[in-house]
Amino acid sequence: MKTEQQNIGQKLKIIPLGGLEQIGMNITAFEYGDSIIVVDCGLSFPEDDMLGIDLVIPDVTYLKENLDRVKGFFITHGHEDHIGAIPYVLRDINVPIYATKLTIGIIEHKLKEHDMLAKTKRKVVRYGQHINLGCFRVEFIKTNHSIQDAAALAIYSPAGTIVHTGDFKVDYTPVFGDAIDLQRFGEIGKKGVLALLCDSTNAERPGFTMSEKTVGKTLDNIFADHKNTRIIIATFASNVDRVQQIINSADKFGRKVAIEGRSMVNIISIASELGYLSLPDNILIDVEQLRNYPDEQTVIITTGSQGESMAALSRMASGMHRKISIKPNDTIIFSSNPIPGNEKSVTGVINELMLKGADVIFQDVHVSGHACQEDIKLIYSLVNPKYSIPVHGEYKHLVAQAKIAAELGYDSEHIKILSSGDVLEIDENGAEVTGQVQVGNILVDGLGVGDVGNIVLRDRQRLAEDGIIVVVMTLESGSGQLLAGPDIVSRGFVYVRNSESLMDEAKTVLNATMDYCMDHNITDWGRIKTEIKDALSDFVWKETKRRPMIMPIIMEV
Amino acid sequence: MKTEQQNIGQKLKIIPLGGLEQIGMNITAFEYGDSIIVVDCGLSFPEDDMLGIDLVIPDVTYLKENLDRVKGFFITHGHEDHIGAIPYVLRDINVPIYATKLTIGIIEHKLKEHDMLAKTKRKVVRYGQHINLGCFRVEFIKTNHSIQDAAALAIYSPAGTIVHTGDFKVDYTPVFGDAIDLQRFGEIGKKGVLALLCDSTNAERPGFTMSEKTVGKTLDNIFADHKNTRIIIATFASNVDRVQQIINSADKFGRKVAIEGRSMVNIISIASELGYLSLPDNILIDVEQLRNYPDEQTVIITTGSQGESMAALSRMASGMHRKISIKPNDTIIFSSNPIPGNEKSVTGVINELMLKGADVIFQDVHVSGHACQEDIKLIYSLVNPKYSIPVHGEYKHLVAQAKIAAELGYDSEHIKILSSGDVLEIDENGAEVTGQVQVGNILVDGLGVGDVGNIVLRDRQRLAEDGIIVVVMTLESGSGQLLAGPDIVSRGFVYVRNSESLMDEAKTVLNATMDYCMDHNITDWGRIKTEIKDALSDFVWKETKRRPMIMPIIMEV
Repeated sequence: MKTEQQNIGQKLKIIPLGGLEQIGMNITAFEYGDSIIVVDCGLSFPEDDMLGIDLVIPDVTYLKENLDRVKGFFITHGHEDHIGAIPYVLRDINVPIYATKLTIGIIEHKLKEHDMLAKTKRKVVRYGQHINLGCFRVEFIKTNHSIQDAAALAIYSPAGTIVHTGDFKVDYTPVFGDAIDLQRFGEIGKKGVLALLCDSTNAERPGFTMSEKTVGKTLDNIFADHKNTRIIIATFASNVDRVQQIINSADKFGRKVAIEGRSMVNIISIASELGYLSLPDNILIDVEQLRNYPDEQTVIITTGSQGESMAALSRMASGMHRKISIKPNDTIIFSSNPIPGNEKSVTGVINELMLKGADVIFQDVHVSGHACQEDIKLIYSLVNPKYSIPVHGEYKHLVAQAKIAAELGYDSEHIKILSSGDVLEIDENGAEVTGQVQVGNILVDGLGVGDVGNIVLRDRQRLAEDGIIVVVMTLESGSGQLLAGPDIVSRGFVYVRNSESLMDEAKTVLNATMDYCMDHNITDWGRIKTEIKDALSDFVWKETKRRPMIMPIIMEV
Repeated sequence: MKTEQQNIGQKLKIIPLGGLEQIGMNITAFEYGDSIIVVDCGLSFPEDDMLGIDLVIPDVTYLKENLDRVKGFFITHGHEDHIGAIPYVLRDINVPIYATKLTIGIIEHKLKEHDMLAKTKRKVVRYGQHINLGCFRVEFIKTNHSIQDAAALAIYSPAGTIVHTGDFKVDYTPVFGDAIDLQRFGEIGKKGVLALLCDSTNAERPGFTMSEKTVGKTLDNIFADHKNTRIIIATFASNVDRVQQIINSADKFGRKVAIEGRSMVNIISIASELGYLSLPDNILIDVEQLRNYPDEQTVIITTGSQGESMAALSRMASGMHRKISIKPNDTIIFSSNPIPGNEKSVTGVINELMLKGADVIFQDVHVSGHACQEDIKLIYSLVNPKYSIPVHGEYKHLVAQAKIAAELGYDSEHIKILSSGDVLEIDENGAEVTGQVQVGNILVDGLGVGDVGNIVLRDRQRLAEDGIIVVVMTLESGSGQLLAGPDIVSRGFVYVRNSESLMDEAKTVLNATMDYCMDHNITDWGRIKTEIKDALSDFVWKETKRRPMIMPIIMEV
């Protein structure tokens, strides 16, 4: 290839553009000569201190600055942390997306919601297929994960071959389709692999990850033990195999299935349209039809397994669901583990359900979609890369994979933990971080992308803690004479009925401050505002040990 | 006793006054005839949606209304969820507190901080001692827990004997003092027990809880494996036995110990003054002295094992600690498990520490202070109560203990899960919830106790989500003519630089609204404010899909 010729002697650059400090924002650029390809394009969900924020997407300034070199996006699977930023990023970087069939199906649904479908080129790729793009050739390899159609990528570059596992597990008995293509990992490994970017999510967990099929058996046992009650099962909307197994159990025990929760309905309709879900005739019923069947002949599959406050199960638990009320005899199954950070909300929902008298089963009805330590060692043995580059997970998970690599004999020169924005230059002769590119979090709040920054967040934090006191007054133009006010209005500070005398005293403080300003000929509005802020803030702190935001507003007539 | 005579035939009332919906607020009234005694007086920490709140204490209106009958408080041990509300509650209900020596020591420290020491009667009780108070006799029984001097209570009333375990575990080889007095539980049980109130915290966990001493062995092994680095250990301030074992390991390996974190320093000084901690000569050094010793000869014991943002370890992790900086070679041990809800903050601190290059050990250096399923069965076997009343823990934990009781042969008539405020009337002939008393959460924010309620919290939530837009204008008195404004100021909404045109358009909307009001002779300020709120809120939602609080302020000159 011409481009390969031109670039001989260059190194391959690997640049994570998100997803390390901000967990979940998976997006990595691979660059050689005039070609850049990008693997995944995920979003992450806001941290607790990002008040009011809906989503976080990566700052892709680097890609925008190198727009003419960006050839395409390769997406490993259809989870939000790998596809969620596509509608935002592709607006500026309009290159084709390559992914497997179900993944493209899910992306298309998302693009439709953002009115981006017509503008975005999508290419469905089969396992084993190779895509040539600039200096790169990319091969899709079958893996297993908690969503179907997951792929690892073999990225062939003039500087060597990179294997990127995506999120994966080793499932010898998957519910749908084939087991992970371990032979191909071995074959590619045998030919020589420069670096392995391997999923670290479960790198702290010893042993092997269980097959998804084991959950099917557990479900059958639970169905057998609860023949006389309605069954409600919450799980991840995107885990179509799990839904399939619930439907299988329901079919076996003669129950109808109703689906509740918007994301669950969406994914199930995409998956069944594309042939990833097989539905026995007439097994699905509408939620409205539930009343036509006895409880013991129904199953409800629902969203809300993470205790998300607006999800269907949480609304049922708190009695806010319009169509489904929890009954004392219901059997409710959490077919999921809480994602770190969600433990408390999940427990809250479980407590609410139990208070309504339901029997709640929330342990051991789930297996992970990520490889554990022994599975990770298996992939290293097959791929046998020169360099280990742990990816996917929090920093402690990357460190855990680095320890596994060290156990397997890699020295610290051959294990590279990258930070977001690091430019790793790599070839057969070495691997080194040689620079940094701009990366960061772009906050999405409602329709606004990037219009909420640190100042706004800091203000929201302050408002959340102690509320706000607004002080308004009207001055006479020219003379600066006080015509009206100062008046005080507060929100989120103290409940007014209890605080009348406090507010009266605060007014006295303000009047004294204004007298002081008049007496000292302080007419500059900035100065006056500062005096008011200082005086009121001191007074409020002394009286309440609180620090509400104080906002003086001066009007002139 | 005279009082017992008078009340023959009455039932005993058991009334939880907090601590079920609001986990941790342990306070239970026992009432017979003219006597009320109270077990524990805890606080709880705010839920995520209680923005800006520092503490939550129980509403004890019921005790205040029956002030002349309240005889005293019996405290089972010195943890915040059992003692924390004492300085607030005893202000209005000035009766004696009975507890063991260390518990009284910790309570006294707390009372001092609130300037309540002189006003509050405290009585130190020994294990085996019986206290006569009104119709009641109360015996303190030795137990084990993650703080020393924990006690169960046998409460003898004319209606029968109640055993309340407090928080407990069964530790046959405690670090300090004796094992739990199982013989006495048996002896009391043999004489006949009406009801057992037993700790449910670990009722979901099978098996037995390990001895605290096993942690000592783990610590010794870690010290042996890390002879060449500084060691920093975070644990619960109140776990004096854990601190003792860390000090023992440090002594064994020739290390000096520095204590960091205010609550840790406090508890250690109380415990060593009272003889609950034995310190080898000269082993403790000041944090300032650390620089005089090589790293490998020092240990730092610190607060922050729960990832609390202001605790010492978190400040070290984020580089904000004034005296201690994390070094790449440090060995950092979390001798704790995350309390539910803290998982994410703990992980955040671990990631930060690892990013600084420290070796972080965070698994299996802890044992629980609460009884597991087999320990609970043991206590039931010894006490053999007529009624099972699960206490301590979330609702799902109470349900788990109820299941254990059911396994042991109790039918549903003899298992009573109480809600906060329930009045359980109980005697040999039956147990039944016959009424409700007022209970609730009182929010403490700074110096304010109870001055923040639902309206303030709802406002804070709204402010936190989308900020605030203040609209001010000055009208002419009499004519209602607009003299100045409407002006717009926002905080926590959007960053101004990006939003100038948005704000300009908003002003156009406001001007149109004011014109409409003038044209239609709308002069009522309430009407004008409503018009402004509606118009601006519609505009902002359409443009941004956000719902900031909108606060119109009208001045008159």
